[in-house]
Parts: sequence; C-alpha cells; structure tokens
Amino acid sequence: MTTKMFGAPVQRTEDERLVTGRGGYLDDLGAGAYAAAFVRSPHAHARIRDVDVMAALDVDGLVAVYTHDDLSGAMAEPLPLLIPHPAILDGRTPYALAKEYVHHVGEPVAMVVARDRYAAEDAVERIMVDYELLDPVVGIDNAERAERVVHAGMPDNVAAHLVQEVGDASDAIAAAPHTLELDLDIERSACTPMEGRGVYARWDGADGMLRLYSSTQTASGVRAAVAAKLGLELGQVEVVVPDVGGGFGVKIMHPWPEELMVPWAARLLGHEVKWAEDRREHFVSAAHERGQHQRVRAGFDDEGRLLGLDVRILHDNGAYLPYGIIVPIVTSTQLLGPYKPGAYRVEFRSLYTNTVIVTPYRGAGRPQGVFAMERTMDAIADYLGRDRTQVRAANFIQPDEMPYDQGLLFQDGRPLVYDSGDFPASLAKLKDLIGWDDFESYRERARAEGRRVGIGLACYVEGTGPGPYEGGHVQVETSGRVRVATGLTSQGQGHQTILAQIVADELGVPMSDISVTTGDTRRMPYSVGTYASRGAVMSGSAVALAARRLRDKALRIAADALEADAGDLEITDGRVQVKGNPGAGIDLGTVAVLSNPLRYAFDEASKAATQFGGGTDHDRPPVADDDEPGLEGTDFYSPLRCTFANGMHAAIVETDPETAEITILRYCVVHDCGKLVNPLIVEGQVHGGVAQGVAGALYERMAYDSGGQLLNASFMDFLVPYASEVPRIEIDHLETPSPLNPLGIKGAGEAGVIPGAAVLAAAIEDAEGFPIRAMPISPSELFHLRAGFAAGEIRPLHRRSGDTARALSHEQENQDT
Amino acid sequence: MTTKMFGAPVQRTEDERLVTGRGGYLDDLGAGAYAAAFVRSPHAHARIRDVDVMAALDVDGLVAVYTHDDLSGAMAEPLPLLIPHPAILDGRTPYALAKEYVHHVGEPVAMVVARDRYAAEDAVERIMVDYELLDPVVGIDNAERAERVVHAGMPDNVAAHLVQEVGDASDAIAAAPHTLELDLDIERSACTPMEGRGVYARWDGADGMLRLYSSTQTASGVRAAVAAKLGLELGQVEVVVPDVGGGFGVKIMHPWPEELMVPWAARLLGHEVKWAEDRREHFVSAAHERGQHQRVRAGFDDEGRLLGLDVRILHDNGAYLPYGIIVPIVTSTQLLGPYKPGAYRVEFRSLYTNTVIVTPYRGAGRPQGVFAMERTMDAIADYLGRDRTQVRAANFIQPDEMPYDQGLLFQDGRPLVYDSGDFPASLAKLKDLIGWDDFESYRERARAEGRRVGIGLACYVEGTGPGPYEGGHVQVETSGRVRVATGLTSQGQGHQTILAQIVADELGVPMSDISVTTGDTRRMPYSVGTYASRGAVMSGSAVALAARRLRDKALRIAADALEADAGDLEITDGRVQVKGNPGAGIDLGTVAVLSNPLRYAFDEASKAATQFGGGTDHDRPPVADDDEPGLEGTDFYSPLRCTFANGMHAAIVETDPETAEITILRYCVVHDCGKLVNPLIVEGQVHGGVAQGVAGALYERMAYDSGGQLLNASFMDFLVPYASEVPRIEIDHLETPSPLNPLGIKGAGEAGVIPGAAVLAAAIEDAEGFPIRAMPISPSELFHLRAGFAAGEIRPLHRRSGDTARALSHEQENQDT
Repeated sequence: MTTKMFGAPVQRTEDERLVTGRGGYLDDLGAGAYAAAFVRSPHAHARIRDVDVMAALDVDGLVAVYTHDDLSGAMAEPLPLLIPHPAILDGRTPYALAKEYVHHVGEPVAMVVARDRYAAEDAVERIMVDYELLDPVVGIDNAERAERVVHAGMPDNVAAHLVQEVGDASDAIAAAPHTLELDLDIERSACTPMEGRGVYARWDGADGMLRLYSSTQTASGVRAAVAAKLGLELGQVEVVVPDVGGGFGVKIMHPWPEELMVPWAARLLGHEVKWAEDRREHFVSAAHERGQHQRVRAGFDDEGRLLGLDVRILHDNGAYLPYGIIVPIVTSTQLLGPYKPGAYRVEFRSLYTNTVIVTPYRGAGRPQGVFAMERTMDAIADYLGRDRTQVRAANFIQPDEMPYDQGLLFQDGRPLVYDSGDFPASLAKLKDLIGWDDFESYRERARAEGRRVGIGLACYVEGTGPGPYEGGHVQVETSGRVRVATGLTSQGQGHQTILAQIVADELGVPMSDISVTTGDTRRMPYSVGTYASRGAVMSGSAVALAARRLRDKALRIAADALEADAGDLEITDGRVQVKGNPGAGIDLGTVAVLSNPLRYAFDEASKAATQFGGGTDHDRPPVADDDEPGLEGTDFYSPLRCTFANGMHAAIVETDPETAEITILRYCVVHDCGKLVNPLIVEGQVHGGVAQGVAGALYERMAYDSGGQLLNASFMDFLVPYASEVPRIEIDHLETPSPLNPLGIKGAGEAGVIPGAAVLAAAIEDAEGFPIRAMPISPSELFHLRAGFAAGEIRPLHRRSGDTARALSHEQENQDT
Repeated sequence: MTTKMFGAPVQRTEDERLVTGRGGYLDDLGAGAYAAAFVRSPHAHARIRDVDVMAALDVDGLVAVYTHDDLSGAMAEPLPLLIPHPAILDGRTPYALAKEYVHHVGEPVAMVVARDRYAAEDAVERIMVDYELLDPVVGIDNAERAERVVHAGMPDNVAAHLVQEVGDASDAIAAAPHTLELDLDIERSACTPMEGRGVYARWDGADGMLRLYSSTQTASGVRAAVAAKLGLELGQVEVVVPDVGGGFGVKIMHPWPEELMVPWAARLLGHEVKWAEDRREHFVSAAHERGQHQRVRAGFDDEGRLLGLDVRILHDNGAYLPYGIIVPIVTSTQLLGPYKPGAYRVEFRSLYTNTVIVTPYRGAGRPQGVFAMERTMDAIADYLGRDRTQVRAANFIQPDEMPYDQGLLFQDGRPLVYDSGDFPASLAKLKDLIGWDDFESYRERARAEGRRVGIGLACYVEGTGPGPYEGGHVQVETSGRVRVATGLTSQGQGHQTILAQIVADELGVPMSDISVTTGDTRRMPYSVGTYASRGAVMSGSAVALAARRLRDKALRIAADALEADAGDLEITDGRVQVKGNPGAGIDLGTVAVLSNPLRYAFDEASKAATQFGGGTDHDRPPVADDDEPGLEGTDFYSPLRCTFANGMHAAIVETDPETAEITILRYCVVHDCGKLVNPLIVEGQVHGGVAQGVAGALYERMAYDSGGQLLNASFMDFLVPYASEVPRIEIDHLETPSPLNPLGIKGAGEAGVIPGAAVLAAAIEDAEGFPIRAMPISPSELFHLRAGFAAGEIRPLHRRSGDTARALSHEQENQDT
C-alpha cells in the first residue's frame, strides 16, 4: 500500500500558492468589471425622506445609481429569514436597499455602478440622502427596557423567545443543599477576517447563465438565494468561490444585500459588476456576535454536583434577524459542556437593537455558553472550597454513558446526543500538561517575588459536523490525475490538503496527483456550506465514500483488462496491480481510458490502453446497462446527527500589580476531535482559535456609543492582537473516534476559540482574588475592579480568603455579581 | 395520462426563436474577442520557402502573427488520424499550420490575431509567403496513375486499401447465367451549410479553464482533441455548441486546425479570440465528399437475382486523411441496400489528391453506394427485359429473414446486421404512391404530346444510430420546470422538440415545461456526436431512460409524502397524483424540493413543500445511503449495434427534347425509420435530404481545374438549387420498429439525400433511352450524351429498343459504359 496519509502531519498543499501571493481572491478577478459602491446610512435609526442623486450624475464614468425604488418583484421584498424557527416572534429582515427606514449605521441605501471604484465612490459622496432622525436603541439593557422600539409596529424589542427544560429546574434548585446565582456579561466582537466580503457577477445573455463569484462560506446557499431573488432557475446560476481570506462565520450569512444587488445589476446592465468590501464597510455592515447578558442559578450538593441549573439569556441580535436564532440556541444548549446539569431550564430572549446584525462567529454562541457554565463551576468550587478540577470531574458525563442524550433539541432541530468523548481522560491530560497540582507551589514562589499569578481552566463540548449532507465527487482523468470536488467552501482551513490525504489513502494514489475543488456549484451543486466545524466531518466523509465507489469501479474495469479477480487487486501509487505481483498492473489513467468506450486516437492515454481489451465483444453493448462511461465516483455523506468534539484549556496568567497588564504565561490545550486527519492542520486550527479566544477575552470588542455609532470601526481602534500578544500554545490530543462517520472524525475548526473568555477569566480571578463576571477585560477595567475590590465594593473569592464555602449565604454571593 | 406527444406532429419549439432571428450563432458571441484570420495557400502543391510577416506588423490593431515555427509540443505535431483503421497504409494528416509543404489550395499557413477582423484580414494580405511550386495531383485518374505523388516519401497515392469478401464472388459471377459490368462515376460535392465553421475561445486563467465555443457536430470530440493538443486535462476544457446553421457532416470533422489555433492563441494571449469562417474559406478549406469511380461486375439468374457481385471503388480522399476511411467503408458495405448480393467482394482504394480533404457529408458514402447498386439493378432489369421493380423484389431480403447478417464489418467495426425492415411492403407502397404500373400509359400520352418523360426508382438501407453511446440527463427544478441535456449537438434538426416530446411522455409533464440543451460538455460531458443519423436513436433513447430513472425517484419521494404506494401513483401535467383520485397530488416541483433535505426558506417551492414530510424522523439520515439529493436522472443508451432504416424513392422526370432541361415532375418517397417521434420533423428531414439529393444529382459539383484550383468556390458559381428547382415531395411512411432501442426508432436525418443521384439517373435514362453512368448531370451534359447517342457512340437501352436482354453480349454492355 501507499504510505498512509490519514493522520500524517502533511504540509498544507495550498500554502505554497497562498503564502507566495499567488492566491486568487475575489478582488483579483474581474479586471474589466464595473465597480459597485454603496451609499450607507450614517445613522443608527432614521426615516429616509428623499434620496437626491442629481449631483452624482455628473461623475465621469458613472454607469447607474439604484435605490429601492428601482427594485421590483422579489428583489423589492425583504431579504429572507434564512433559518426560520417557531421561537421567532417577529423576524425582521432588511431590504436589499433600505426602504423608508434605516435601522443601523452602515445599512445600504443606494448602489452606484461606475467604470471604476474611484468614480463609484465619488458618486456615492455626491448622493444626498435626507434623513429624519429617530432615537436609536443601543445595548441589551435599553433593548430589554423597550422605552423605544427598533421596529415600528412591534410592542417591544423581543425578536424571539425560547424555553427548553429537562426536569423541573426550579424545584431541583430549591431542593438543593447549596445554590448560587451569577450575572454574567460578554460583549460584542466580530470575525474581522483579513479579506472582507466581495461579489463579482457575470451575466451571459447568450447562455441565459449567471456566473457569480462570492467570498461566501456557502456557494450553494448563495446560488439558491440569488436564483430565487432574481427569478432564475437554479440551473441558470453558477456560484464559484475563489480563494477566500478567512470566513470565521460572517461569510455564511447569505444573501447579503450586496450579493443580490451586484448580480441583479450585472444582468440588467449586461456587463460584469464587482464589489469588494472595504474595512469600514465590514465593521458596520457585515455582522457581529457574542453580546449577551446571562443570569445563572445553580443548585448543587456538597461535592459540587449540579442538581438543578437555570439559565436566562438576553441576546443582542442587532437590527435584523436574517440568519435566525442559531447563536442563542447554541449558547443555551452547548453551555452544558461535558456536564450533567441535573434538572435544566434555559430561556433566552433575542433582542433587536439599532446595531449591525449578529450572526455566528467562530464558536457561534459557545464562548458565551462556556463562559456561563465554567464561571458557574468555578463559583461552585469557590463556594465549596473545593479544587476546581474536582468539581468539574464530579459533574462529568462518563465515557461509559456515551452516547449521552442531554434531552434538548440542538441547532439542527435534532436531539442533543453526545456520540463520544472521555472527559476524565482529557482532564487528566490537561492537569499533567499544565502541572495543575504543582501550581500552588509556583504561586508561592511568584508571590515571594512580588508577582501575581493565577491559573484557570475551562471545558467545552462542541457539536460539529451537522447535516443534512455534503457530497463528494472523485474522478480520474486519463492522465491519471485525480480531481476531487466537494461543495462546501474553503477560507484557508486546509481542505485541499486533508481531502487529498483522505482520497490518497482510499484510492491508493500519491497526493501530488490529486487536486481538490471546493465551493464551485459547477463541480458539486448539492452542498450546504462551511460552518459548525463541519468541513472534515462532512466533506471528508463524502469524498471518502465517493473514492470508495470510484475504487470499486476501477478494480472492476482493471480486473476485466488484467483478466484477474477484482479481489486480488490493489491500487498502489496510482497503479492497479495484482497483489503480490507488482509487475502485472495497469495505471489508473489507463483504467480511465478503458472506462469510456469512446477512444480518441490522439490521446496518449488511449494509445497506452490499446494493449488491453478493445471492446471487440459484439454481444454486449459498449456501456453495460447498469454502468456509465468514465471513471468517477459520487457519493453523499448524511449523518444521523452531529458528532461532538470536546476540549479543555488551562492558562496561567500574571497580572501586573501596578499597571494591571495581563500576561499569559502558559496556555495549554487538550483537544479531542476524534481521529486526526492531519495533526499539523488541527494544531494550526487550535492555534488560530486560541488567538481569537485571547483576542476576544482581552482586546477585541465593539464600542458602540449610545447613538449607535461604532467608535472603533477600523484596525487603528479595534485592537487585534499581534503575534506578541498570543501565547505559545501547548497541545495534547485525545482521540475518541466518532462512531457516526466512516473516518471517526469530529470537527476542529472552531474549538480553539470557545473556552478563551472562560479560561482567562478564571485565571485572572485566581490571580486577583476577586470574581470576574464580564469579558473581555482590559488592563484599565481590571484596574477599576481592583479599586472596587479595595473599596470593599467587590467581595473576595472565599477560597482565597481562607473562608469555608458555607460561610457565604446565597444572598451574599448574589451581591458579588 | 397527459396527451401522448411521441408520434405527434408537434411544431418545432426551436423555430420561433430561429426563424425570428433570435438564434445565437457562433459569430453572435464574443463581441469583445480578438479576431483571427488565416493566411491560406493559393497553391495546390508547394514548398514553403519563407513566410515574411514584416509588412503586416504595421497594421493598426495587429495583436499577433503565428506560423508553424511558433508551435511546439503536441501543437507542432500533425493533427491526429481521428479514426484509425488497419486498412490505412499511410495516414497523412495536416499540421495546425502548414509545415514546409502545402498540399491543397486553402491550407492554413499562418494565423493572424488582431483587434478586429478588418485588421486581421489586412494583415493577412500583407504577409508574403514564398512558395516553390510543385506539380499537383488532381482527379482520381491522375491519383491512380501516380505519375506524381501528393505526399513525398510515398510510392503512390494510395492512402488505404480494403477488401471485404463474403463467399467467392469471382467464382459466383463466372458461374452465373448472366453477367454484366458497369463503370460509374460520382463527382465531388460538399455540404455548404448556411453557417460555416467557427471557433470562439475564452481562457480563464484564474480558473485554469478553457471555454470553447465551436459550431461543431461533436462537443466532446473537440474537447478531447483540444485538451490533448493544448496539454490540458479534460476537466479544464468546456465546449459549448451554440446554435449552428447546418452541419451535414462537415462539422463532425475535428479538430480543425482553426479549432486548435484559436484556443491555443486565446490561452497564450490571455484574451478571447474568435474566428468565423467565410464562404470562400469554407469551399477551399473545410471538406468535400462523394467523388468516386466504381467498377461493378454482377452475375445473376433469369429472374435478375444476384448470384455474385464484385465492386471496385476508387475513392478520392483529398490531400489528407484526418477522418480516416469511413466514407469508402460505408459505400462498400451499404451499397448492398435491401438486397442479398449472393457472393460479394468489395475492394476500395482511397487516394490522395491535391484537393481539400474528404469527410462524410449527409449520406456519407451511401449516395455513391446506392448509385452503384441501383444502376446495377436497372442494368440487370434492362438486360433481362424485366420490370425494374420485379428485379429488385427478386433480390429483397424478406421480413422473416430479419435480423439479417450481411457478413461484413460495418463502419463501427461491428457486424453489418440489419435489425428490421419490410422491403416488399415498402416497394408496394412506393408503386402505389407514384402509380408505377400506370406509368407506361402516361408515357404514351406524353409522347403523343412530343414530351419525353421517364420514371425511375432507387432503394437503400441506411445504418443509423451507431454507438458506442449517448447520455441523457433529466432534472426537475423546484419550479417544476424540466431541464434535459444530452451531449450530442444540434445543427437545426429539431432535437429540442423531439427530446422534449420523449421526456414529456416519459415524465408526464407538458412540453412547455421542458427545455433541452445539446452539445454542452458542462451539462453532459460523456458524448459522441451528431452524425450517422444517430440523434433520435441515441439521445432519444438516452433521455427516455434518464427520464424513467427520474420518474422512479419522483414516485418514490411522492409516495412517501402522500403516504401512498408508488405503484398507485401517476404523473399527469407535471403533478404526481393517486390514480383515480386527481385531488390527492403533489407537483413535481414540490417533489424536487422534497428531494433535497436542505430547504431554503426564501424559495417559494420550499414553502409549498412544507405541508409534506419535513424530515423530522431522527432515526434515519436526511439522505439515505443509496440516495442522492436532487430530482435528477442520468442514464446512457449503448446499443449492441446500429439500427437500419430504409427507404425507396421514385421520380418522374421530363427532359426537354431541345434544350435537355431536366424537370422533376413527381418525387415520391416511402420511408421507414421505425417509430416516428414526430412525423413533421421526419418529413422535414426527408424534404431537406431530397433537396440535397436533387442538388447533388443535377446542380452541385466541385469544379477543380487540373492545377487544383476550385473554379466555383462561391455561391455565384456553385449552383445551389432554389426552391423552384426542388420538386414537391410526396411521402408515405412504413414503421417497422427497431428492436434495439426502447423507443423502436431508427435514424432519419440523412435518408432523403441517399438515393437522389440513383433515382434521377434512372428516370433520366428511362426518358432518354440510353444509359446514364455518371452523376451529377447538367442539361449540357445530357445534350452532349444525346449527341453521342445519335452518333451511335452510346448504345440504346435494349428494353426500350425492343430487343431482348439476351441480344446483348457482356462485352457489348461493357462498351456502353
């Protein structure tokens, strides 16, 4: 057999191209296209009295200006509510171009098309929009108070309201030996990928075909949306996703207004049109995530075992709800993590505010959920004076309880059933890795040096790889090269490498002979998209199944040509050969020639095939009844439900006693995503995730003022960490294979980011000796908390003060928050 | 059930578009493309000493000039010998651009690319080629004599030599009671479609993809050829065939030099390039057909029954042999027609001449073969003094002898086995239709008026629909519209109509909901091409099989949704319903939505589907293991061998006693192409074919002078008949279904042209009273023959002179020729 590629730390095959500047991103395409630019609302809430375009008409190179008045039919209707849910009370979605009202700064009001972007921007500046200003609703508190409403006609700002309950949490908490209650906050942040959104459309009138390039995470979703809005058949729309400079969730949202307007205009104008988002546009008109208030009530026993848990979440969904309520659903279900919560009740309200929309961002509601649960675990440990790892261990679902049904419905509407995981083993690895049990002696030494250090940990479980399906297509060219296609898209994750690894093993061909295409509806029209850490699970499984089909066909044809039994054959290095007799063989490329009874005399491969069966049997048709020409395999992987990855992070931080600067001394990760296709890529994913977790915990937030203006809408003001702020990351793996797919894999793309806020809050709290209930936290905020602590406004952590847990009443604990 | 469309005389759905000028032909595409033009040899045979492009470089708008020196790798090699055959002794093919030698007038020597065609043509005129003139070989006699050779290094001009023999023809003829011998000639003609060839190429560097538009008859063949020559994978090349203004065979040849040079240049220049052939180019650089000398020896009994037949053919294949020897193989096998020849020997030599290449033209060698056999039948009847229909009937294969094996290998390398036909019944219909038995009294009346009239008939059998396969793809969009694709191409035959008719019946949807795509490798990459009257047989069968697969899937999904048994369902007017309960039903578009577990909230069809099963069964995956998303069916039809259509034509002509003008008074056709998909289209095909048959018999020929210059290379000089020259055509059908395909159909596209020369020669001979041995025949040629007849240089037809057949010795008969 060819050396096994699955599991090997193969260098990413896409990197030579990408890191040498030879990637082809959206804005590298369409040199001859018209440029689009958008007039966007400068106000968070206003009524449009008039749009005056007269002054723009003088701009040299102007092609067209469109407002909502120019739209008709489906294009004039609001954008779809992409993922409806019964809990949505009033699902407001924006228009492709604003109609009468604008509901957040950055909302598109008019589109300009011009010969180039310079001219388009000039015209945008000359378009005068007369706004009647309305009072905005900004922040969760204001949204909940509902003194003003975001959307006229609504009684309040509640977009959705959902309760899920297993058992009677209220009773269980009331009956528990101990209870506590926490109020928690996580602020808004955003994906901020290196490349913004972008759309480039070509309408081919002769063909009646639209070719749309988009830096989307879902080619098939954009295709369906654009077809529906433009009144085209699916078959008239091709969506091709070029190289994409990061997605992290924001690019799964579709259709964006721009994603509709650009192809709409291209078709109308009979000319290519392109729009590439600039950075400020991305901050104010793409999407954010994270912002939640959480109130947790927990009842537990002397061991810290949860008996009842009640969580109430206020979720800020921004001005519209086009993507539905996936984020708060994920928070409310995934916060359970590796634990059995006893009776559980969770309730969320998703609230409209006059800010940009909220859609999933790497982790997708889980960082908030993990923050809630892990803050609770730490509070229980603190309350009981027990080691934080012991309290967690006491609540773990045990390996022999898998599959474990949490009794809830998950984001995909299917039961929340964990398939695999060994949480005690993971915790043991984490404690070893960071040296948990040695930390107190380290702390003592540090304290002796005048240093403050703290340690924290956080655990999570992550549903990855949800269905309904992805497809794989594998084809052998007559050259012997193998073409692999799957429908989901890539934003730099390394799909081209791992899918090639999988196919290399399944087929027995060298990776260098395999090329992989993602996100191209021409190659695989049936697809879902890249989100929920589903790439490897879904498309990895699909291409494996497709390759197996192809392999079966190749062996059948080769057996015929070699006059052997298919069972006696194997494929090694792209050659089908008789086991134990490497001399007797036939190249896969030649098998591809033989698979098609139409031979071409000019084809070198056809010439090579002439020594094998030439179809001279006149009693059977050239293509058998149950066969097709060509050496291809197509298959779809469609799982019963998600597979559940999990992990545990621990960090040691040092806080400067004077400046309150927070330094991460160590960051350790134990990660279980089942079988590793490529440890190098998984670790890269973990590294990137941890970096974003650290960013979200210590640096990044969306600073909206009360008027709904985003004050830090640039990389001058939005603090992305540099390499110097990201700690060295130490990783250990546990592999509990998923029983749900043929490769035993679970998703790994988002994992790294999920426990970031929780683990750093725990470590800072441990260093400082008083509770941390809100993230992110900056040095100045920590400095401010210290002042409050010194003034007695914040209670100390009791464990640290030497009190027993029982010394604190529930009421007192509540006052801490 | 929906009204049955199969067999109905449905108006052609493509005609509204085509006849109102809204067709999209090759030259309608690529408005922004660079234009290519070719420097072509003005000499039939020369050595290129030098190509001087300096003067062209000043032309404003010039982009590039290429000669053979600019080519490398596979592009610098000769074009492929497309269909190799063991009988080919020395298969010479041209280069994409001439290398050192030119072998016919019109051969491309250099390519110019410029901003527009004007500039390109200006540059072409300024390129100076220094030729060393060589003596050309023109005409079959010169080629056979081989005093000069076309290709240096060959001992003579024989490109191929093939003998097939069943029994011992020589012995059988020697032992026969009667024998005769005929020398026959058919001159060259050509397809002359309304639209010439054309190629338009786009290279998409970002994608690494070539899109090639060509007015070809084989999208897949061009794709394979271009990929091989340009060193691309098949998967990198898309070939799309737009509307094409007639093919008739000339466009099945591939790759044309221009078909390689245009995409080669487009890739090199990174810019679209287009070339559209002009009329003169088409005459001198596309392809011709027909030109043959034939020597027939026949031995027969008193009833006129053939006992032995020996045919020797000299075939003019022009300067090169890129398409192989299909034409003479077809002549040598298909001349047998509906007859049992006794022992049969056929031999052909295919000869190089310094003229443009010969490739199949509608009928593809059959008009020559039928001319040989039918002239022989008439000569036997004349010899024996028997009625010409009686002699034919005596030789017919009988219906109960089907399938009938002629014992030869056909063009596709498979046995020549007739599948169906009822020749006696066809003949009876033809005699009825034209009033054969009443003709002598009509002749007497005409003679009394001083008019010369004659009657003739000719029979043929035509192998149609050869394999190896065609594919069909049928898809239901969520709108309910049905998209049908097959790989072979259309040049105006009505494929869009008949394939929609077939699918309409198979699926139970209205034709207006069906759109058909042909010749687009994006939609159906596995295909062969449009030739050999194979469109309806091959693609009709393939789309029927594909539609059946789709129907099975639709019924399965609908049965699930309707909680019914699939066997109780039927599809009517695009709606699946319970038989006998039209109220309980579901639209096919909704079934398409249900076929994909990924629903889109914004899709009207998805909304309509919500009343049906929503995939809430959590114990099965959204896509079952043996299923795929989508409502599609793909299948391939791959027959054991050809199906054999047949027909018989009869004509009554009048020849002017003074001017020798030939007027066709009646033209009757009995046609058996099995089950008629659409009688209107079949009759249209017959009409067109008869028109081309009349044209080839009376008007069209290629007038090469001895220097190899084509003297009539324009529509001023090449006499295409007007509507006034084409007779009214009376048609009767016989339907003997083919047992080889699911629809019982046989091909109909070429039939009309096949017996044209034979039937008109017979009628003219019958009018004039002396034998006609060469076609086409013009009034001046007839006038000249009359003079020879009057001078006793040509013997009379004996029947007409009152002699008995036996009065003429074999030698005497020979002298007639």
